[in-house]
Amino acid sequence: MKKMLIASTSTLYKGDYLEYIKSELEVFFAKVDEIVFIPYARPGGISHDAYTKIAKQAFKSIGKEVIGLHRFDDPENELKQAKGVFTGGGNTFLLVSQLYKYNVISTLRELIFDGMPYFGTSAGSNITGLTMQTTNDMPIIYPPSFKTLGAIPFNINPHYLDPVSGSEHMGETRETRIKEFHTYNTIPVVGLREGSWLDVNGDQITLKGDLSARIFEQGKQPYEIETGSLIGF
Amino acid sequence: MKKMLIASTSTLYKGDYLEYIKSELEVFFAKVDEIVFIPYARPGGISHDAYTKIAKQAFKSIGKEVIGLHRFDDPENELKQAKGVFTGGGNTFLLVSQLYKYNVISTLRELIFDGMPYFGTSAGSNITGLTMQTTNDMPIIYPPSFKTLGAIPFNINPHYLDPVSGSEHMGETRETRIKEFHTYNTIPVVGLREGSWLDVNGDQITLKGDLSARIFEQGKQPYEIETGSLIGF
Repeated sequence: MKKMLIASTSTLYKGDYLEYIKSELEVFFAKVDEIVFIPYARPGGISHDAYTKIAKQAFKSIGKEVIGLHRFDDPENELKQAKGVFTGGGNTFLLVSQLYKYNVISTLRELIFDGMPYFGTSAGSNITGLTMQTTNDMPIIYPPSFKTLGAIPFNINPHYLDPVSGSEHMGETRETRIKEFHTYNTIPVVGLREGSWLDVNGDQITLKGDLSARIFEQGKQPYEIETGSLIGF
Repeated sequence: MKKMLIASTSTLYKGDYLEYIKSELEVFFAKVDEIVFIPYARPGGISHDAYTKIAKQAFKSIGKEVIGLHRFDDPENELKQAKGVFTGGGNTFLLVSQLYKYNVISTLRELIFDGMPYFGTSAGSNITGLTMQTTNDMPIIYPPSFKTLGAIPFNINPHYLDPVSGSEHMGETRETRIKEFHTYNTIPVVGLREGSWLDVNGDQITLKGDLSARIFEQGKQPYEIETGSLIGF
């Protein structure tokens, strides 16, 4: 039975890394001593080692070891032994390219479907969807495919941002971009605001955190669902 | 000798479509009666016909005819006859996918290098760079390549947006995204603010409009260049 936490962000404004979700992580990873960290998304271009150090520090306070997947010569084989996985945010194009490069996408998918606890933030949440096509990131590298884990039957838009009222900027709003996505795609999209996450237990997916989420389905007006609601299409 | 206007946006806040740049367009297209419009980027998912109508209306007031490239059975051959081209904004992934699909990228490139006047806004400006990798758009469709026209020796980031001071949103700023681009790419990036455009005359590229532009080079601190400056790396 799938067990996942799919979070919009790692860090809230003025908060520390993973601080807002730590008590949740403690319960979620209760039976896991060592978590494999996937640092491939490299936020702001930091090194895999530097990124792993940040994750290590955050999990130390709840008594968990963290090892970076980048440290192993054979990441595919190493991943197979994982008792829990955390994929951090950064650039989704980079993350997906590396997952394909190291041939770990199908392994990760199998582990998740077998019930290994998976935690993702931002780009690490994006990849749990059917495709990475509702990422907010720049296409800094050309991935072999936009297809991702398909561990949930929809796509995620992390860091979902409401239109800024009174903005004089004429670039597309997030809602306009997702509308563009739906001119060519039928996949529903869950806009997860910062501080929100999805709690996945098998096929039961619950919205958690303080805020509502915005749901986009092709051919429908976008609508809100309240925290605590089940998500299904 | 290349002749291009590469604009950040089509429309300024509270302005009409192309209004702010119309007097410039009148001079730029002085010797062109009919402009071929490439509507493939479909902003917000509008139809090719609806989009072409908007462009047609804007150019009517300066006495120019506009025909949509989508109306022709053989766009590649049709494009070869063009005396001037305008590519409108929208989704860059969609635009680039369609340019490849209809096999018009190399034709367009040849025309530009032969001196045919080319005007682009937003996504239509993005494609004049070496790659489309500094677009702000969502990857709603998987293009065969991120390589674009290479009519200028750098990339464009249109609708360049300065970090919003006091913002509590934890998603990446534009500057962070471009920094991420430079962890894997050496191509310089010109961040064009709304209301700015590049005036290309052969190899001479001048920043126009009221605002400065922000320049990003790999391994350097970003810096500003004033309007009226030449751009060269």
